[in-house]
Formats: sequence, structure tokens, C-alpha cells
Amino acid sequence: MNARLDELKARLLEVNDLGSAAAVLRWDQATYMPPGGAGARGRQLATLGRLAHEKFTDAALGRLLDALERETRDLPRDADDVSLVRVTRREYERSVRVPAAFVSEMSEHDAHSYQVWTEARPANDFARMRPLLEQTLDLSRRLAGFFPGYESIADPLIDYSDPGLKAAAVRLLFAELRERLVPLVRAITAQPPADDSCLRQHAPEADQLAFGLGVIRRYGFDLERGRQDKTHHPFMTKFSLGDVRITTRVREDDLTDALFSTLHECGHALYEQGIRHEYDGTPLAEGASAGVHESQSRLWENLVGRSRGFWEHFYPRLQASFPAQLATVPLETFYRAINRVARSLIRTDADEVTYNLHVMLRFDLELDLLEGRLEVKDLPDAWRTRMMTDLGLSPPDDRDGALQDVHWYAGLIGGQFQGYTIGNILSAQFFAAATRAHPAIPGEIARGEFGALHAWLRENVYQHGAKFTADELVERATGSPMSIEPYLDYLWRKYQPLYGLGGAGPPRG
Amino acid sequence: MNARLDELKARLLEVNDLGSAAAVLRWDQATYMPPGGAGARGRQLATLGRLAHEKFTDAALGRLLDALERETRDLPRDADDVSLVRVTRREYERSVRVPAAFVSEMSEHDAHSYQVWTEARPANDFARMRPLLEQTLDLSRRLAGFFPGYESIADPLIDYSDPGLKAAAVRLLFAELRERLVPLVRAITAQPPADDSCLRQHAPEADQLAFGLGVIRRYGFDLERGRQDKTHHPFMTKFSLGDVRITTRVREDDLTDALFSTLHECGHALYEQGIRHEYDGTPLAEGASAGVHESQSRLWENLVGRSRGFWEHFYPRLQASFPAQLATVPLETFYRAINRVARSLIRTDADEVTYNLHVMLRFDLELDLLEGRLEVKDLPDAWRTRMMTDLGLSPPDDRDGALQDVHWYAGLIGGQFQGYTIGNILSAQFFAAATRAHPAIPGEIARGEFGALHAWLRENVYQHGAKFTADELVERATGSPMSIEPYLDYLWRKYQPLYGLGGAGPPRG
Repeated sequence: MNARLDELKARLLEVNDLGSAAAVLRWDQATYMPPGGAGARGRQLATLGRLAHEKFTDAALGRLLDALERETRDLPRDADDVSLVRVTRREYERSVRVPAAFVSEMSEHDAHSYQVWTEARPANDFARMRPLLEQTLDLSRRLAGFFPGYESIADPLIDYSDPGLKAAAVRLLFAELRERLVPLVRAITAQPPADDSCLRQHAPEADQLAFGLGVIRRYGFDLERGRQDKTHHPFMTKFSLGDVRITTRVREDDLTDALFSTLHECGHALYEQGIRHEYDGTPLAEGASAGVHESQSRLWENLVGRSRGFWEHFYPRLQASFPAQLATVPLETFYRAINRVARSLIRTDADEVTYNLHVMLRFDLELDLLEGRLEVKDLPDAWRTRMMTDLGLSPPDDRDGALQDVHWYAGLIGGQFQGYTIGNILSAQFFAAATRAHPAIPGEIARGEFGALHAWLRENVYQHGAKFTADELVERATGSPMSIEPYLDYLWRKYQPLYGLGGAGPPRG
Repeated sequence: MNARLDELKARLLEVNDLGSAAAVLRWDQATYMPPGGAGARGRQLATLGRLAHEKFTDAALGRLLDALERETRDLPRDADDVSLVRVTRREYERSVRVPAAFVSEMSEHDAHSYQVWTEARPANDFARMRPLLEQTLDLSRRLAGFFPGYESIADPLIDYSDPGLKAAAVRLLFAELRERLVPLVRAITAQPPADDSCLRQHAPEADQLAFGLGVIRRYGFDLERGRQDKTHHPFMTKFSLGDVRITTRVREDDLTDALFSTLHECGHALYEQGIRHEYDGTPLAEGASAGVHESQSRLWENLVGRSRGFWEHFYPRLQASFPAQLATVPLETFYRAINRVARSLIRTDADEVTYNLHVMLRFDLELDLLEGRLEVKDLPDAWRTRMMTDLGLSPPDDRDGALQDVHWYAGLIGGQFQGYTIGNILSAQFFAAATRAHPAIPGEIARGEFGALHAWLRENVYQHGAKFTADELVERATGSPMSIEPYLDYLWRKYQPLYGLGGAGPPRG
């Protein structure tokens, strides 16, 4: 068995090396690549993707898995080797069904579509994107078609990011959440809005970056094994467990936009940096699912980074970095400003209460497109209609409507958004469990210390990588299955006093 | 034939994509990678290198070349397709003759030797390097042995960097050059040395970088198809003809070190950016040889960048960037400082007159080692003796003697150095030819304009990539074979007035 395991690991390492090389190329494309590099870069990424796919779908690897499954049948499910075989099998099946030519067609299309989108969005030119998006929809459907037997055509696509999750389950979960969230949003937005003018002040880029970097070092982001750069759209990427990078964007007319984006990506990075090093180069060295990954970005961005305790420690320091802007602004004003709830057009700018309404809109539109209830040409209108229904406002143009997120313009339609809201739900569930285990955590946060929280998360979530499914991990870490109650409870406890809401708990629909 | 050509190009593109990906990974390793990424990065590069080698040495590619050679037999030698087949054949033969096991033995030895050298050089410990260098010599000889039928054992090694060039020809050329250069160095160093204290002043990094970038934009470096970053050791690299990057280092206690390194790498980059775009992704999209490549870095660094005309335009601008340092320093003082000739121990710090003596010393020692006239144990002594003969000074230790350059300690002995001096020789020959064709060039340079020079080089050198051998290219571009006369003429015209040398032309030995 050991010889077979060694061969499996060697083969996986080769696939991983090609994937990591592609990740470096994509990072470079987003950070430093000059425009002239775009054409060849798309082709290079397609080649790496194709070769990785060829290597990973080698029939010899399938035979190795067959043999290893027989040999490990009687070992415990959570033994590392058993988990490696199991998770590799899941990925293997997902890969062998998709022809290499299709993978390369898709990745070339994605690169091209992304490049065009970077021009079409600022130009508010949905017409230019439309044929590309129609191709994307077609490719997404063809991809799902390689996995017959699904309930919803979205299921195989969702499975790529949240293994095992079904569209029907998400629809149910989201319906329940939406039913309780919409009244909460209504109750809050019936109150006078918080004044956030203190954030809309000029703040030099270098100072913003320095402050953010200072905070994430305190969080525990290891700069010996990571770095931060600037991009148009912030993201986290990993080239090995020793090289985990985040990116941010800076708006000099917004004092905290870069900061919260930095805290968000840092949450993703802490997860990756915390995976057991023995897993490096294998399919176990990933997050458990998009939802669990997002729970960490939201936890560190919102539950920690927008909490009153956090700012009791950091606000005097922020004032020292930006004295001209903040010296005369009281903590309470600032705290209300960064937690302002308002109906808005842009998902990435949305507050943590309305954010999920943006996500659920996208999830439903993805389903409608995939399941044939909506045509691409009608997407901008459908977007406007749903925005009006859920948020009571409608984008004046497509730039801030259907063109706003990169996802559909550089990847699949389907499975792209549910993870964000699942992440919000789980962030509160994990945080509540950590605080139950270590009641000192809130006090520590108020002193700018994050050791106990980080250690609990590393122990209960991060170290396991992709060894457990999201369901297993949540159950093990929190003692119960995924539930929206901790999240609604968190929102209520935070926003009830902020907006002086009446009643003993969150309003029901 | 077209179907075969298309298949050849598709196969070459795949090899090229893997090589370009590796180049991105190496660039990142040198610029931005955090320390924690090092282990995995080495493995990722090894994987990409191995796959590229496997793909390029595929027997099917050899059969394609056989067929295409038959089919293109009657087409003109300089037709693009014929050239592609010819140049690919050259690279192919070079790759298939060397067993993969040998390549991996060599690359492991190189990595180990380099690691030891980084400690042994500062410790002045040649004894520690000796057994490793003996292995390097043995490996270099074995590598040459895969290409039987050579005149000199150095020929196959030289062929890697300067295709078609023979040790005997270089020996002849260098003997002739040395005979005339040594007396010139003696004549110059008999005069009082120039005062270069105006350069040894503190100059902030950002201002140095901004000034250098301003100059290379004027040179014609296309920032839409390239960029500049900082590294420990400056280099030029290319990911496609649309993405050509240079790096530099900055010493804040040296006002022009970063500038001249920038102009040097920019020369390499202008060459690559000027290659015909139809060649992108094929073996034709390279420089003709190390010597021709170096001719472009030296031309833009020295013949242009250290000329009086250049500084008539740029010196007032440099003074404006560094008023505290240069406002009271006259142009003539600065011009003499940047062209100071002095006998020195270190090749990379040497001026353009003595530089070649350093290079020729190394070339001759390489030949002596390879051809068995010198043993590794006697290398430090041989180095000291030759330094005394040629430059009239001798290193006090091996750190600044036989241990100084990384080349032998991280790669072959043989073929590593001749390109530097051939570059100097050709830089003057190309510049003279350009000026004959466009007598306005010197006047343009004195106005900070480089259009005519750049256009001539693009037309006569750059666009052809690796289509012609160095000999063919030089003959086509300048009307005569490589000759040392333009170079000696350039040196004499420049340094005779600078140092008030007597006589009507360069002294003869």
C-alpha cells in the first residue's frame, strides 16, 4: 500500500505543480502583467490547465485509487490516507467526465471574456458582453451535462464549489433566511440612516495599506508565508501552503474600504495558512467548501473587524494614522458609520444585513438562466426588477447592475454565489462555538488580541483542509448542523441597539 | 506541408507555454515571492522543466522535422517556415542527445554547488569549492561528449549560447583584441584617474527609479508590453513578445548604478520587444546569440547611455531630479566620472575599457580547464598571474579572484563568458553601421531622441529574432563580418580626448 500511496502522492504533486503555476500566472495577470501580455497569458493558462487535466485524468490514477480504496476499506474514515484517497476520488470523478478539449475551450473563453469585461463594465456596455455571456451560459450547461442524473442542472456546478450541496437545499435555506431578513432590513431602514460621512474623506493609499497590514499581522497573517498586492478586484490565492497571497484595492476617497477588503481576504488566507503542512501539494490542502471558506473571510471582516470591541482597541490607532480626518470623530460615530445599513446597488459595498439579498438575487438568476426561465438578453431587466422587489431600488445602468460582478464574466454561470451567504451563516455559527469554548475571546478582541480565536479556528476548522465535508466539519466544530439561528441572533444583538429596534427578537415575516 | 507546419507550431507553442510559465515563476521568485514559497517553487520549476523537455524531445517532433526538411528543401533559406524548421532542428538535436538523467544530475549538482558557493565566497574558501568545481568540470566535459566530432571540447558548450561559434575563432578574435586593448589600458591608467566622487552620493530609490524609467521610455521601451521591478540581481525576461520585463537593483549610495543597469537591461528588452510578432511562441522568437543580445544591452548602456551627446540632453534633467547632489557639478565632471577607467578586481564593476580583459581571462581559463592544460586546484594561481599580466594588479584573496562570478558555480565551465566581449565588439559595429545609414543619429541622441537608431536596429537586427545566425545577421546588417575595428575605433575616439592620450590612433602592443 505504501508504494501505491507514494505513487499517488507523486502524481498528485505533479498535477498540483501545474495548478500552482497557473495560479501564479493568474495572480500576475491581475497584479502586474502589462496589457500586451494578455493574449499569450490566456493561451499559457489554457495549456497548463489542459496538461493538469490530462495528468489528473490518467487512467493509471483511477486504477491506483481503485486499489487503494480496497486496501484502506477497513481503516477509519478520518485517517489521513483514507481521506486523501476519498477526496482525490471525488475530484477525479469530477475531472474524468469532462473532456480535456472542453476544459481548454472554457479556460480560453474565460480569459477572453474577462479581458473584454474589464473594458465593457466601465463603458456600461452589456451589449458587448452579451454574446460572451451567452457562450458562458452554453458552456456552463454543457459542463453540467457531463454529470447526468442531477435534480437541478445547477447541482453539478454548485458541487464544484460546495461539494455535496444541492440547489434544492440552498433554495430552501435561502427562502427561510430571506423571509426573516427582509423584515429586518425593513425595520432597520425605517429608522434614520447612520451618518457615514466620516468615512468619505480623502485618505492616502500608502497610509491605508500600512494600517490594514498592521491589523492583519495582529490577526496572525504570516508575511513570511504570504504577501499583499493591489488589484482591481481583491482576492486570495495560494501557490503552496508556504505562499498564500491576498490582494486589495484602495479607494482614496473611502477611509475603510481597503481595510475591510483586506480583513476579508486575510480571513481566507488564515484558513489556507492554517492547513496541516503534511497536506501540501495534495487535494486535502484546500478549504472544505466555498461556504466554509467564506465563513472565515466574513468572520474576520465582520464579526471581528466591525465589532465594537475590535474598535475599542484599534480606533485610537486609526485616529493616530488619520488625525486630520478622525481626530474629532467619536468612536460611536465611527462605529455606527462602518455598520451603516442601507439599501444599495453594489454587492461588494453592501452592509452585512442587506448583503445576503444581493447574493440570493444572483443565486436565483443563475438558476433561472440555467433552467431556461431567463434569457441572457433579459438579464439586465430581471436584475432591475428583483432589485426593486428586494431592496426597493433599481440600478440606473448595467455597470452597477448585471455587469457589476466579475464572476459570470470570468467563469461559470451557476454555483458562484451561494457560498457567500452560507459563509455569513456559518461565520456566526463558528464564532458562537469558539466563544462558548473560550468566553475570554470578546475581551481579547477588545485588547487587539486574537490568539484564542485564531487557535480555536485552526484547531477546529483550518488544519483539516478538505478532509471533512462542510457538513461534517460544521457538526464536529460546533456540535450541530448548519443553522441560520446563530446568524440571525448575531444580527439582532448587534443591530437592535444600533438602530433602537423594538421587540424581543428579530421580526418575522 | 501546411498541416505538418501547423502541427509543428502547435507542439512548439505547448513547449513555449511551459517555458513561459517557468519564466513567470522565476521572475516572481526573484521579485515578490515570500521566503515560505521557496521549497515548493523549486519543485514547481523542476516539474515545468521536465514536462517541457519531455514534450520537446518527443520522437514525433523529430519525425515532423524530417518530413518538413524534405518538403522545404527547395525553398529559400531565409523563408520564415524554412528558418523555423532549421532553428527548431538545432534546438531539437541539442535536447535529444542529452539524456534526461544527465540533465537532472547536472541541475541537482548546480543547485548544490550554488548553495555552497553563497557561503564559500564570503568565507574566501576555495578549498571548499574545489571538489565541486572538479565535478562541474567533469559534467561539462561529459555534456560536450554527447556532441562528438567537435574541434575543441568547448565548442558544444559555446554552441548553447552562441550557436555556430567555435572556440578557435573566439581565441583568434580575443588574442587580436587583447593585443590592442592592453596597451590602451596602460596608456589610460598612466594618466591621473577621473574623480567620480559626485556619483557616490545618497540618492533616494524612488527618484532613481523614476529617472531611469523616464529614460527608457524615451529609448522606446514599451510599457504596454513590459514593466520594471526590483531584484537582487538585474535581469531581463520574457513571457511572450507582448510581455518583456526587466528588473533592476538600487544602491542609494550610488547615483547612477541603478540607471546604467536599467539602460543595460532595457537594451535586452528592446531587442525582444522588436522581434516580429509572427514568431511569438516559436524558437525564432529569441535573440540570435548571447553575443548579439549583449551587443544591444551594451549599445544602449554604453554607446548611447554614456555618451556626451546623451548627457547634453539628460544631464540638466538629472540635475533637476537630484539638485542637492548635482546642482554645482558641471556636465564635464559628471561625464568624466561615469566614464572613469581604472584597473579593478571585479568584472561587474569594471569600466567599458578594462571589462573585456576580465572576460577574456575567464574565457581562456575555461579553455585551459576543459582542454586539460589547467587543473582546478591551480585555478586561483592562474587567475592571479593573468590578472597581474593584463591589469597589473592581483586579487588579495580568492573571494575577489577565482570565486567572484556565480557562473562556474551554478552552471557549466565553458561557453559562459565569450558573449560579453562579443557583445562589446558588436555593439560598436552595429552602432557604426546605423550611423553610416543615418548620420543624424548622434544629433538626435543629443536632443534625447532615439527614433532613427531604434528603427534601424529594429529593421536590421531585432525583427529577425533567431532566424539568422549571429554571423549572417552581422554581415547583413553591417555589410561585413564581425570585426574589432569599430570597437577599438569607438574606444579611441571616446577615451583619447577624455584622457589626453597621444598618437593618431589606439596604441599597438
